[in-house]
Amino acid sequence: MAAEYHTVNPKKLLELTTSIFIKMGCSATDAALAAEVLQSADLRGIDSHGVARLSGYVRLWKADRINAKANPKIIHETATTATLDGDSGLGLTNAAKAMDIAIEKAKKYGSGWVAIQNSNHFGIAGYHAMKALKHDMIGMSLTNASPLVSPTFSKERLLGTNPICYAIPAGKCEPVVIDMATSAAANGKLEIAKRKNEPIPSGWLQDKKGSISNNPDDLKGGGSLLTLGSTKEMGSHKGYGLSAFVDIFSGVLSGANYGPWVPPFVSFLPLAPDMPGKGIGHFVGAMRVDGFRPIEEFKSNMDQWIHRFKSSQTIEGQEKVIIPGEPEIEMFKERTSSGIPLIDAVYQDLQTLSNELDVQFTI
Amino acid sequence: MAAEYHTVNPKKLLELTTSIFIKMGCSATDAALAAEVLQSADLRGIDSHGVARLSGYVRLWKADRINAKANPKIIHETATTATLDGDSGLGLTNAAKAMDIAIEKAKKYGSGWVAIQNSNHFGIAGYHAMKALKHDMIGMSLTNASPLVSPTFSKERLLGTNPICYAIPAGKCEPVVIDMATSAAANGKLEIAKRKNEPIPSGWLQDKKGSISNNPDDLKGGGSLLTLGSTKEMGSHKGYGLSAFVDIFSGVLSGANYGPWVPPFVSFLPLAPDMPGKGIGHFVGAMRVDGFRPIEEFKSNMDQWIHRFKSSQTIEGQEKVIIPGEPEIEMFKERTSSGIPLIDAVYQDLQTLSNELDVQFTI
Repeated sequence: MAAEYHTVNPKKLLELTTSIFIKMGCSATDAALAAEVLQSADLRGIDSHGVARLSGYVRLWKADRINAKANPKIIHETATTATLDGDSGLGLTNAAKAMDIAIEKAKKYGSGWVAIQNSNHFGIAGYHAMKALKHDMIGMSLTNASPLVSPTFSKERLLGTNPICYAIPAGKCEPVVIDMATSAAANGKLEIAKRKNEPIPSGWLQDKKGSISNNPDDLKGGGSLLTLGSTKEMGSHKGYGLSAFVDIFSGVLSGANYGPWVPPFVSFLPLAPDMPGKGIGHFVGAMRVDGFRPIEEFKSNMDQWIHRFKSSQTIEGQEKVIIPGEPEIEMFKERTSSGIPLIDAVYQDLQTLSNELDVQFTI
Repeated sequence: MAAEYHTVNPKKLLELTTSIFIKMGCSATDAALAAEVLQSADLRGIDSHGVARLSGYVRLWKADRINAKANPKIIHETATTATLDGDSGLGLTNAAKAMDIAIEKAKKYGSGWVAIQNSNHFGIAGYHAMKALKHDMIGMSLTNASPLVSPTFSKERLLGTNPICYAIPAGKCEPVVIDMATSAAANGKLEIAKRKNEPIPSGWLQDKKGSISNNPDDLKGGGSLLTLGSTKEMGSHKGYGLSAFVDIFSGVLSGANYGPWVPPFVSFLPLAPDMPGKGIGHFVGAMRVDGFRPIEEFKSNMDQWIHRFKSSQTIEGQEKVIIPGEPEIEMFKERTSSGIPLIDAVYQDLQTLSNELDVQFTI
């Protein structure tokens, strides 16, 4: 029996991932960038968005839905805004390149905003937004995704888990990074429950008729995830509004697909007929903090904000208050030094991929 | 016995409100603008943010916390960013003026973003963001507010109901306007339950020890509102993250107060000691749609988005899917033609105010 987890060296895993992207036809630069984006998820503990997705990207490439040799181009532009055509390439690289454009615009004009069309899954939102931090900028990233979520009152899947990310620099403290799906629970949580053969709590999922479901299998059976808020009474229309904002900024503003037309991540599902746009869409941006006030003043106030929230009185028996991004930073430190634990299924998957693409499996 | 509601003519109510602001010392222009912002709430059915708040503004002015003769000034600026010192003035006018600055910047550079410090309650977020629509721009507005909400795991009030608003133009359809508090329920919903002597559902409020409460009086008793998501399991940390984003953009980026230091709306509560900033803070912005793609293409896709969501299959026995902003537009049309229904308490309040300030009560 294989061990449940295989703890691997981050550097070796990065090399393997890069080699696989190169075998897909990516340039050495693009392959290294794509591998870095995936690894940032594994290091930050967002296992669902790291190398666990690699075989998905390869299958989309084999199905001719990902162009590994993409040459993204700016197709519309003002001083502080632009739209990038991602040339059907990896979202991992398209969004990172778009963020570089946004940062350059922000250096000159205070802020920069780039919508991306004709793209694919971009990995974790956090990677892209956090690129702004080393420039003392606030970063933002959004993406739409294949439809799994119903708006309030509906039983149809019209929205993705459409994440929102804001990365905000601090002083001596770690930055605040808010990176969240706009559904009540991400798909990964359902998969964990399924693996453990456990029911899920009421409020994450509805079945195909729209009744609250505790059975994670109901998602595959035509059900849908619920928006943040879960029920109308608890504010699910707010989660729906946030998801709509992400879909419109990522899909409609860029000229990508939106709503139920967003292409599926899995290659065996067909594309929707009559797609109104190109590929999936993202939206990224950067703002210079010193466009608003001197950076040292801001950083000192951010540190005070963080200290005040961290020292908040907690409810008896509960954990201490967490700063957005704090658990991911802890995980990053731990995994950078101790290695990345891959579940056996992902480890086997990487081995199979390596054989298929004739890459040496050395992790 | 007085009637429960008094339906009043919008034009007459606007004149009365303007006269009261003039008596506070506002210029004719500022008074008319402030009255218009308040009336936009009453017309859109957001009764908690309309003239029901007018006596609150007057009391803050009497307590020397609102400067009716404020002269807001830009204190920091780049091509597309600025910070406005609101000179302790009405947030109603400060945020509207900041939005004008953002729109001017967007006309020149594609986008514009203004943080506002040293301000007060700004009315409904929607008014400010929607100013962008007639310029074919997307508008955004945020504000922090006095602390009533606890972050996940805490029993302390560290955040306001901190609203987020995005206003997005469409073509033949009405614009999409997402305007939402980041708490599970707004304070107004608790007040309605209290008036009806009804319990509130689990998930809106916790008591001072942090236990879920169904008694709306527990808010005054030291309890706190819960963030969108209500419980950790249902994603309350996401609501907390969103509220944190609003607080940091509005308060920390502008140099206003933030977290537990945000000044209270009610004049009888003291200011927090050792306030780190000035007044309360807002953040507004505008982006030209044609900074990303031709406006007609965008509008046509927005109309398709709206039609697709409106025609979504609904769950048996549920209402049809609502487009964000749709109920407010319906209400606006109805009240513009049929008048604004004021509850008796608000009507009496306006009468008292008029007497106090020697304004003719003609509504």
